[in-house]
Amino acid sequence: MRFKFSIIALLLEAVFIVLFGLFVEYDTENINSYLYFKDVHVMIFIGFGFLMTFLKKYGFTSLGINMLIAAFGLQWGTLMQGFLHRGEGEKIFVKIKSMINADFSTATALISFGAVLGKTNPAQMLLLTLLEITVFAGNEYLVTEIFKATDIGASMTIHAFGAYFGLAVTFILYRPGLKNKHKNEESTYHSDIFAMIGTLFLWLFWPSFNSAIAEENERIKIIINTYYALAACAVTTFALSSLLDERGKFSMVLIQNATLAGGVAVGTCADLTIHPFVAMGIGNIAGIISVLGFRFLTPVLASKLKIQDTCGVHNLHGLPGILGGIAGIIVTAVQSETKKGVELTAGKQAAALGSTIGIALVGGALTGAILKLPIWGQVSDQNCFDDSAYWEVPEEEKLYEINSNNYDEHSRFEAVM
Amino acid sequence: MRFKFSIIALLLEAVFIVLFGLFVEYDTENINSYLYFKDVHVMIFIGFGFLMTFLKKYGFTSLGINMLIAAFGLQWGTLMQGFLHRGEGEKIFVKIKSMINADFSTATALISFGAVLGKTNPAQMLLLTLLEITVFAGNEYLVTEIFKATDIGASMTIHAFGAYFGLAVTFILYRPGLKNKHKNEESTYHSDIFAMIGTLFLWLFWPSFNSAIAEENERIKIIINTYYALAACAVTTFALSSLLDERGKFSMVLIQNATLAGGVAVGTCADLTIHPFVAMGIGNIAGIISVLGFRFLTPVLASKLKIQDTCGVHNLHGLPGILGGIAGIIVTAVQSETKKGVELTAGKQAAALGSTIGIALVGGALTGAILKLPIWGQVSDQNCFDDSAYWEVPEEEKLYEINSNNYDEHSRFEAVM
Amino acid sequence: MRFKFSIIALLLEAVFIVLFGLFVEYDTENINSYLYFKDVHVMIFIGFGFLMTFLKKYGFTSLGINMLIAAFGLQWGTLMQGFLHRGEGEKIFVKIKSMINADFSTATALISFGAVLGKTNPAQMLLLTLLEITVFAGNEYLVTEIFKATDIGASMTIHAFGAYFGLAVTFILYRPGLKNKHKNEESTYHSDIFAMIGTLFLWLFWPSFNSAIAEENERIKIIINTYYALAACAVTTFALSSLLDERGKFSMVLIQNATLAGGVAVGTCADLTIHPFVAMGIGNIAGIISVLGFRFLTPVLASKLKIQDTCGVHNLHGLPGILGGIAGIIVTAVQSETKKGVELTAGKQAAALGSTIGIALVGGALTGAILKLPIWGQVSDQNCFDDSAYWEVPEEEKLYEINSNNYDEHSRFEAVM
Repeated sequence: MRFKFSIIALLLEAVFIVLFGLFVEYDTENINSYLYFKDVHVMIFIGFGFLMTFLKKYGFTSLGINMLIAAFGLQWGTLMQGFLHRGEGEKIFVKIKSMINADFSTATALISFGAVLGKTNPAQMLLLTLLEITVFAGNEYLVTEIFKATDIGASMTIHAFGAYFGLAVTFILYRPGLKNKHKNEESTYHSDIFAMIGTLFLWLFWPSFNSAIAEENERIKIIINTYYALAACAVTTFALSSLLDERGKFSMVLIQNATLAGGVAVGTCADLTIHPFVAMGIGNIAGIISVLGFRFLTPVLASKLKIQDTCGVHNLHGLPGILGGIAGIIVTAVQSETKKGVELTAGKQAAALGSTIGIALVGGALTGAILKLPIWGQVSDQNCFDDSAYWEVPEEEKLYEINSNNYDEHSRFEAVM
Repeated sequence: MRFKFSIIALLLEAVFIVLFGLFVEYDTENINSYLYFKDVHVMIFIGFGFLMTFLKKYGFTSLGINMLIAAFGLQWGTLMQGFLHRGEGEKIFVKIKSMINADFSTATALISFGAVLGKTNPAQMLLLTLLEITVFAGNEYLVTEIFKATDIGASMTIHAFGAYFGLAVTFILYRPGLKNKHKNEESTYHSDIFAMIGTLFLWLFWPSFNSAIAEENERIKIIINTYYALAACAVTTFALSSLLDERGKFSMVLIQNATLAGGVAVGTCADLTIHPFVAMGIGNIAGIISVLGFRFLTPVLASKLKIQDTCGVHNLHGLPGILGGIAGIIVTAVQSETKKGVELTAGKQAAALGSTIGIALVGGALTGAILKLPIWGQVSDQNCFDDSAYWEVPEEEKLYEINSNNYDEHSRFEAVM
Repeated sequence: MRFKFSIIALLLEAVFIVLFGLFVEYDTENINSYLYFKDVHVMIFIGFGFLMTFLKKYGFTSLGINMLIAAFGLQWGTLMQGFLHRGEGEKIFVKIKSMINADFSTATALISFGAVLGKTNPAQMLLLTLLEITVFAGNEYLVTEIFKATDIGASMTIHAFGAYFGLAVTFILYRPGLKNKHKNEESTYHSDIFAMIGTLFLWLFWPSFNSAIAEENERIKIIINTYYALAACAVTTFALSSLLDERGKFSMVLIQNATLAGGVAVGTCADLTIHPFVAMGIGNIAGIISVLGFRFLTPVLASKLKIQDTCGVHNLHGLPGILGGIAGIIVTAVQSETKKGVELTAGKQAAALGSTIGIALVGGALTGAILKLPIWGQVSDQNCFDDSAYWEVPEEEKLYEINSNNYDEHSRFEAVM
């Protein structure tokens, strides 16, 4: 991995700088959106990063490679979205909204990262990021510019896209050796608490995420809808988590993930006139779907369909993303909505949803096939979910020295400690 | 607990959605306050949540039930405050300020949660939240609309109210079995560090909390006063923490809590013309009171008055809240202050402080009596302060597998490990 | 330490209140900058604080004394900068920008804290803060008002200054007893994850740091430059971290620190017209310098030059700060830039860089000499890097009770556990 990863990373970084030198300039808009950008930024690096630290021996990779993907991807996302949306022959003019979109584009790769977490190496993740953001930018252009569909909080173009792309990748990279639970694929008490840092910052700033690229005057409605959708979703998630457990106990994996489904699902139609109680209803249904998905669907996907989804992104981003798309179809079907002078229709919304999932699956499968090439060096099944494959990890004996003053006097336990 | 909790939660959530459908609509104000709302939001979910993670085996509940209370309570708070403050026969129009007030209302329940932490179950906490927010909304209406007192940072209506309400509840729920220190009622090295996440985000965003519902032009003074009050309070807390310890050592419980007392105490009069040095003086006194309370008062309350205050909310919110109320009385007594055309008087301020504490104590006692009904199923003394009563907790042996590569070769230690 | 520290702290706090009473009043500017202030505030208390929690037994001090230094220093910084920048005979009028500058001034002391981390006591740190902020305020005045140099993101006046000041202090306080690696001078798995909280919040809010005291219309360019400089720096850091390791593994200390060097280095010229790709180039070079510094320079400094730099502030703040200064010299040499009507010249920039480093080294050496006086009570070499010298630390046996239900049945292991 030493040279493969380093050389790919340095080479691509050099290419980015050249492309920025040729094509990218400052725009001089006002910076009102900076407030929203920062929240998205926190969600990408802290939210996604810490959410994945739940694994007991994979926290360095979750945080570190999450940061790498995002820092790398935001440069490529700036270029890809810039090329597609710039005027004919113009430079790419970067403003706060470009930075939001660049961060958004990395979210797709980070969602897919959740599906393959523990099973890929850093070089593979750089390639996945490069390919996924390219496909994402194309699909996003298709949805917004060709179909002229609405998806203000990106339920479809980011969440469903990232999830199904990642599921296709993990399907292609299927590892029979991980059919039985890997000994490292579990959490510890403190790793679950670290993961809650991610959950909470995602939950708190989701209103900003959904309204980040909206016009100033549309934001209030989006913020209110997302706020109440998430609140309703959280309460329902706690209730179902207890209800589905034999002893009535809460499950951390559900609280960490399903509480967020309401933010995903309300995304597509958060700027439409849906009334707060409908937003809450969407949040509720999202919570129910997500909890049921974790409990009943994920095990089936793994055992029957060879889809090993480490973080359960299907339940957090996939199903709630589709729900968001469907909500958008229904709202545009039952009431008249226009945006920038164009009428929204159920047909356009359905086309957007269908194309997003189709492109994600095909793009993910092709990406998976490329990542499967032997040249990248797969990590062995045994070393999956283990930071020490790619990180210098503090020697674990050290933990014991803290705890025991008598350590030196009991050297016969040293091997165990 | 399985059905009791789930059914209460799902039922109330359904009621909320119906009430929102009947009464709640969007307001279309500008969203300048969103900047302040987000900070309050972080304080409620990250600040309060992590502050309570100091207990070694209760981090899941601290973070999880904190989130549940807040997500549940903000919906109820929207309705309660909306009903009281809406125009005759009008809908409740939700804007950013409503969201701030909804978050505020949950703060009272979260403060009370700190008093009973480790000793109640999730169903009891839902009821407490429902009842406390109802009483809070009534008292807040009384203080602002009837007495026309000022309490911009809610020293009285949130902090003192939440503390005395919670103390009354914990008094009623007194457990003789916890008279001697419970083996789980202590911190670990890392749980204390997790708690500092809560402390720091509370400390950092307190200027936003105190100025969140102020008019735009009043905010600068509030922010400055709170900033310097907290700085002075923190320095004094460190000094006293060392001074009161025989070996001169700092105490984490004091640093985690008493450093925040300045923000509480400066709240009532932060928008009055008090000069920065007076704010610092208030911060100083708050730090002193809070440290002394933790050191000398809490043990007495527990042993003599049967008030078992897990987090010491009396020292962080109760006494500093009263100090804030008294500061408001003094300032309005010595100088003329008007607000929205109404003159503030020491009498009105004293009435606000007295009614707040009285209503909190009575409301808390009644709530405690309801929570004490056998139907809710009390957790046994032995299982107090232990997440595993309500959560699936990772098996602790797992922690050891991380630490020892030789684990499998030493299976005779398995029972211990 | 009990009385020494407490009395110094209380006395100085009393002096601060008197000085605030005599000299400080509110200013009534608009509060647009509050958005930026808050990010700086988070960086100072969460960013710097958690970044230093990487040591396995020093998390309480890292977070606690970081908070103490900042809360203490911001009051002194307000006074020092206020006296230098106020009009003749006027009061010090405090506004949001004053609070940003107060927080900025504490950053210098916190950077120096990183150099001496683990080797000083709280009383020494109060004195260091007092002295360093005094010298900083003088140098900042010299650079901006006399030399009229530009340093919008404070690469020179904060980062290089804080680093070289701290290096001079640690040189004077050289401990031969720590020549061989101290057993506590290392991280654990979870302490490294805590440190990433600091890294990420610093990384995320650096665009706000660099633009915090800029004019509203200059901010967009600074934000864009810093955003892309950091992204490029992060990718390069990951690449080099792997490349320089024999097995190609990433090193946490590099990811935690060198990823931030781009934010430091782009600071001086972030508001000049440098194009985004140049910002990325600066970020790249900063990452390279910082990684090389950690790998090759720090060990040499410690062994040959008697400079024991605990956190490697030379590599994160020192070298990248100088790089920022040089970038400023080059940009002002090759193109014409004016600011507030004054032309920027390479000569002025070079004078600023030189004076900053010179004053920092001399100031640091004098401060180190004062801190070395026996009166302050040095911690013994053996107790370095250990919280329990200054904190009540939870007994470590407790950790084991969590982990083992069988604990009581195996009392013969008690001594080890």
